[in-house]
Amino acid sequence: MNRFGERFAFSTFGESHGVALGCVVDGVPAGLAIDEAFIQGELDRRKPGQNAFATARKEGDVVQILSGVFEGLSTGTPIAMVIYNGDQKSKDYENVKNIFRPGHADYTYFHKYGIRDYRGGGRSSARETAARVAAGAIAKLMLRELGITCKSGVCAVAGIEGLAEDFDYAMQSEIFALDLRAEAAQKAAILEAKNAHDSVGGVVKVRIEGAPAGLGEPMYYKLDALLASAMMGINAAKAVEIGEGVEAAKMRGSQNNDPLTCKGFESNHAGGILGGISNGDAITLKVHFKPTPSIFIAQQTLNTSGEEVECALKGRHDPCVAIRGSVVCEAMAALVIADMALLNMGRKMDALKRYYA
Amino acid sequence: MNRFGERFAFSTFGESHGVALGCVVDGVPAGLAIDEAFIQGELDRRKPGQNAFATARKEGDVVQILSGVFEGLSTGTPIAMVIYNGDQKSKDYENVKNIFRPGHADYTYFHKYGIRDYRGGGRSSARETAARVAAGAIAKLMLRELGITCKSGVCAVAGIEGLAEDFDYAMQSEIFALDLRAEAAQKAAILEAKNAHDSVGGVVKVRIEGAPAGLGEPMYYKLDALLASAMMGINAAKAVEIGEGVEAAKMRGSQNNDPLTCKGFESNHAGGILGGISNGDAITLKVHFKPTPSIFIAQQTLNTSGEEVECALKGRHDPCVAIRGSVVCEAMAALVIADMALLNMGRKMDALKRYYA
Amino acid sequence: MNRFGERFAFSTFGESHGVALGCVVDGVPAGLAIDEAFIQGELDRRKPGQNAFATARKEGDVVQILSGVFEGLSTGTPIAMVIYNGDQKSKDYENVKNIFRPGHADYTYFHKYGIRDYRGGGRSSARETAARVAAGAIAKLMLRELGITCKSGVCAVAGIEGLAEDFDYAMQSEIFALDLRAEAAQKAAILEAKNAHDSVGGVVKVRIEGAPAGLGEPMYYKLDALLASAMMGINAAKAVEIGEGVEAAKMRGSQNNDPLTCKGFESNHAGGILGGISNGDAITLKVHFKPTPSIFIAQQTLNTSGEEVECALKGRHDPCVAIRGSVVCEAMAALVIADMALLNMGRKMDALKRYYA
Amino acid sequence: MNRFGERFAFSTFGESHGVALGCVVDGVPAGLAIDEAFIQGELDRRKPGQNAFATARKEGDVVQILSGVFEGLSTGTPIAMVIYNGDQKSKDYENVKNIFRPGHADYTYFHKYGIRDYRGGGRSSARETAARVAAGAIAKLMLRELGITCKSGVCAVAGIEGLAEDFDYAMQSEIFALDLRAEAAQKAAILEAKNAHDSVGGVVKVRIEGAPAGLGEPMYYKLDALLASAMMGINAAKAVEIGEGVEAAKMRGSQNNDPLTCKGFESNHAGGILGGISNGDAITLKVHFKPTPSIFIAQQTLNTSGEEVECALKGRHDPCVAIRGSVVCEAMAALVIADMALLNMGRKMDALKRYYA
Repeated sequence: MNRFGERFAFSTFGESHGVALGCVVDGVPAGLAIDEAFIQGELDRRKPGQNAFATARKEGDVVQILSGVFEGLSTGTPIAMVIYNGDQKSKDYENVKNIFRPGHADYTYFHKYGIRDYRGGGRSSARETAARVAAGAIAKLMLRELGITCKSGVCAVAGIEGLAEDFDYAMQSEIFALDLRAEAAQKAAILEAKNAHDSVGGVVKVRIEGAPAGLGEPMYYKLDALLASAMMGINAAKAVEIGEGVEAAKMRGSQNNDPLTCKGFESNHAGGILGGISNGDAITLKVHFKPTPSIFIAQQTLNTSGEEVECALKGRHDPCVAIRGSVVCEAMAALVIADMALLNMGRKMDALKRYYA
Repeated sequence: MNRFGERFAFSTFGESHGVALGCVVDGVPAGLAIDEAFIQGELDRRKPGQNAFATARKEGDVVQILSGVFEGLSTGTPIAMVIYNGDQKSKDYENVKNIFRPGHADYTYFHKYGIRDYRGGGRSSARETAARVAAGAIAKLMLRELGITCKSGVCAVAGIEGLAEDFDYAMQSEIFALDLRAEAAQKAAILEAKNAHDSVGGVVKVRIEGAPAGLGEPMYYKLDALLASAMMGINAAKAVEIGEGVEAAKMRGSQNNDPLTCKGFESNHAGGILGGISNGDAITLKVHFKPTPSIFIAQQTLNTSGEEVECALKGRHDPCVAIRGSVVCEAMAALVIADMALLNMGRKMDALKRYYA
Repeated sequence: MNRFGERFAFSTFGESHGVALGCVVDGVPAGLAIDEAFIQGELDRRKPGQNAFATARKEGDVVQILSGVFEGLSTGTPIAMVIYNGDQKSKDYENVKNIFRPGHADYTYFHKYGIRDYRGGGRSSARETAARVAAGAIAKLMLRELGITCKSGVCAVAGIEGLAEDFDYAMQSEIFALDLRAEAAQKAAILEAKNAHDSVGGVVKVRIEGAPAGLGEPMYYKLDALLASAMMGINAAKAVEIGEGVEAAKMRGSQNNDPLTCKGFESNHAGGILGGISNGDAITLKVHFKPTPSIFIAQQTLNTSGEEVECALKGRHDPCVAIRGSVVCEAMAALVIADMALLNMGRKMDALKRYYA
Repeated sequence: MNRFGERFAFSTFGESHGVALGCVVDGVPAGLAIDEAFIQGELDRRKPGQNAFATARKEGDVVQILSGVFEGLSTGTPIAMVIYNGDQKSKDYENVKNIFRPGHADYTYFHKYGIRDYRGGGRSSARETAARVAAGAIAKLMLRELGITCKSGVCAVAGIEGLAEDFDYAMQSEIFALDLRAEAAQKAAILEAKNAHDSVGGVVKVRIEGAPAGLGEPMYYKLDALLASAMMGINAAKAVEIGEGVEAAKMRGSQNNDPLTCKGFESNHAGGILGGISNGDAITLKVHFKPTPSIFIAQQTLNTSGEEVECALKGRHDPCVAIRGSVVCEAMAALVIADMALLNMGRKMDALKRYYA
């Protein structure tokens, strides 16, 4: 179950304090130019240790392609990529070796698998998302050829919401802020929480442009359903909205329906999706991230023997996981769209006949 | 792609104005008592035409089991169920035969498949959800044997939110209201919109109790990810929240983390899921439904020839799809948990050895 | 696990003595003309009770389409088909109600599911293959549009092998014999065994013409691997050969390699498949069926209490399952090729770009 | 499609002349002791360059585990293994850079993907099977804990068939011969062909002991169907037989049925499988391999421009791929059984209830 997607599919492996992590991307059409610098660039966007708003863990996150590319082009065979772990400083975890960290997956992994990998987050660590970003970079390369772009940014931090939606600005912002005017307050909120040994939540927006109408496979592989799965599966995500999202539930049909004209839809409350299928408009969604569970304030918890103990974490953690999470949302969105683009082929008999003519 | 689930899997078929719709449930363990009256009862909860708050379309929704059950017990083979359509009054759709209905899937289906089934919603109609409810009833029967219950109700209509969470009351409320005190205002809002030829949105809560810790398959079949997919794939759903959901993004880690004591978790902001795996606490989620797109106010749209026309719908439609949607949410939740319960077996080597000892 | 295929996928349901059996075909491209008479005709070819060489069980095998077709065309939604059981004369099984029939699946189903459906073969009955033939007929309709044909026939019965490979003659032969000159001896062998209350085995050949080069998905969904799975999964199949098959293992490379010229391959030892991918030549395979396990000679067996008893079957059974099995092989082959044809789309980047241009 | 299995699943990546090849094994129950020396030992059995009967290509085939194991135990997360290619001497292929090699997959890959990886077999090379053997070793470790063993050996070479079935002897034979008395003649046949710049075919037997009754998932994931798929998907395999196989088709029912007594089955024509489900007896199968297509005799073929040319191969190739193929058959058999063992859990309601009690 460490695999995602049907036709453009990827699987990931690796733990935060193991030898390496990586992914295998299966189903990439042959003949796609694989720009390694672009893939590395995407990883660098997600990479920790770059400023005060992310964990200080240092990782080169250097990706190596092991297969599936020949003379710069995809061959149609699986593209395996590996990232060796550099900074495996797991001694930060020694004092919580036998203590369940509140808000963390160590409690549930222990109950599910009966194994305690006390070195750190292990498989449940957000470090795993580096592999998703590598896979997502391949998806973005493919989508680029089809004129489809995926962009992301942070719209809210600690409840401080920006109004603007400037995805280009987000690319240069240290916290991927979508609104320059909200950025300073958002940064201040992060640092304040950090100094208080606490953490904050945040909200990410994703916008996909250029997707043709027709993507999404009803009934149980709808575009919105798969996007929801992709986003909710990201570490710390607790809510996903498509288009107008929670606001739509407060509206009347006459407000929420998007009128259709010769020039296209007059509004986009739907977020570009109707009946689980893209309608040709921009696909928009929001992902809500809880505050990082790793905080340095003492907390009530249990140890593996079932005794009540106080948990006092050490180490280096993101004060706001939504920041780097935005890069992951974008990667996952690209992976979903790439899969849908392949799945949609052959849905019409005439296209099939043309293909084999 | 009309299939959902891995081990406890179901697929559905059928259109709103076709001969019949139904489902095939695959993976039901052998030896489960199949209570047909219970299945029919679940369908009756979702059935239209029962009061002023739902469409007047009359459907008996009588389910017939075609296979997989012998002498009242599941045999381990696929359980096929069929519901023949009674009221196929598709002449309501004659005046919109060539007109794309705003907010509907007919536009996207047409672009995807190149086919226009002008008889009505077709496959994209909420009528399809009857098949999900039938499948969900089997899941609920299985979960009952494991001491797991799934309940649902409507917490908000047209922005009017109830505070109480009384799932027992919801069972008897005409609008499945969770809060008796909000119910009257919620009903009034529905009728007001209906009289104005308009519609309203609503919000559904689902609560799963008795689920053991350990359900959910990381990385890409996490419990929350699959629940998100299951819910977002329901007609008109536009947002899904797990536990504290969107509110979590506004909190600090010290507030949002659930302290763990010998008696269990002290709070449940997590909604019973950590790292995509159930933690033994109640699993809670919210689904936001947009207002029914089918309204009787004239709207701007295109016809299939690409000309701008006015759309004037006739017929019978739910003024608030969230109401009957709550039964569907509950069914889908049960189906997800059933699948997860089967998938979780064999995750530990000692359990596997015990099984084959 | 009652589902087969990835893109052109089908699932089946139903037991030999239940209410009905049927299939749901998912992934049929929209716009395919669905010729119901053709589907019924395919079922009629497989139908029992037509001559002395098959079981006397009378079944109309009338198929009804429940969904997925509108105005004679596939709509892209699941095509559900149902065949109600007519002749449910399960009293033939009363004397073996608690007795495991040698060579049958009742022993293994009992151990797997802990349930004994003593009415007859149940899910393991060859009756289930009617549903496959219905699904296969849809596949054949699609392949016909692409210029691909699947043909089958019986090449050997009871060790009596024909030399000719006349698929047109097989269509009119009561035993689907590929060689007119061997037919009489083959028929005689069947009747002789039948009169001796025994049964015989047989061998089926399948030939697929017109398939383009490029079908088959390495590594683990190769064309030959999937054909092998499809054929070996048919009731009573015990061996599958591709092309030269078992003979290839006795040859030298210089004999077995097929020389390639401007006019195509000079021979076809490969059976049209290289590296698991079709090479454009005819795809050929053979399926070996064991003799029908249902014989009327007394046999040593156990009852469900574990006591040794004599099994004396009554009823009506095919003296040679390979005969009607050939229609099933042909259907399964068509289903495999249809799936492969859809899967192959989008394997090249330039095709993907052309599709979305 | 480079993935195999449902619950105990693996995917592979890598080309013969690329950086590395490897596999990711997903679904291994947590708590399994991972014996790295055993895994390496399995790879060493398959490794080329060890004697005159295999290719002279030298490969260390040193496997490195990247994830999924902690303190010697599986953690339940994906186990990734990588084997870096050492001897990438692809200059052997320079003279056939633009020439399709008869009997090879380069022709079909070129047609499917539009890409020519002229360095050698690439993804279609038998070198890929090293990754399967690594994955299979994990499966064997798991099966060992359940008392299930998989053994293999070569029963025929160039039509020279051994009668004995000594799997222990095969372990020490240079050609994995099952019959000591046939071994010398078989070896001579290989060397004779090799000296004639030609190659020979061979046949492998696999025997699985200790498997409980009940493994196999009808209808379309039957044990025999999946074994057939697993075996036919191995490079150069052209036929698969279960139990009596092709001989069964020549027998009568009274001969072929296996009588059942209190002590078990009196014979095993069925090869341990009835109705696609294991019956508790030994599971037996045979795989027929064509002669290695890479021969040094000049052959007629085409180049990539479609011109007729003579193909004169150089390099190092196995004179009989069945030899090393037997190790791969064994690995694939173990992988199938491991998957089936996990899938079978939860097939009975009482087992499910016991699990969650």
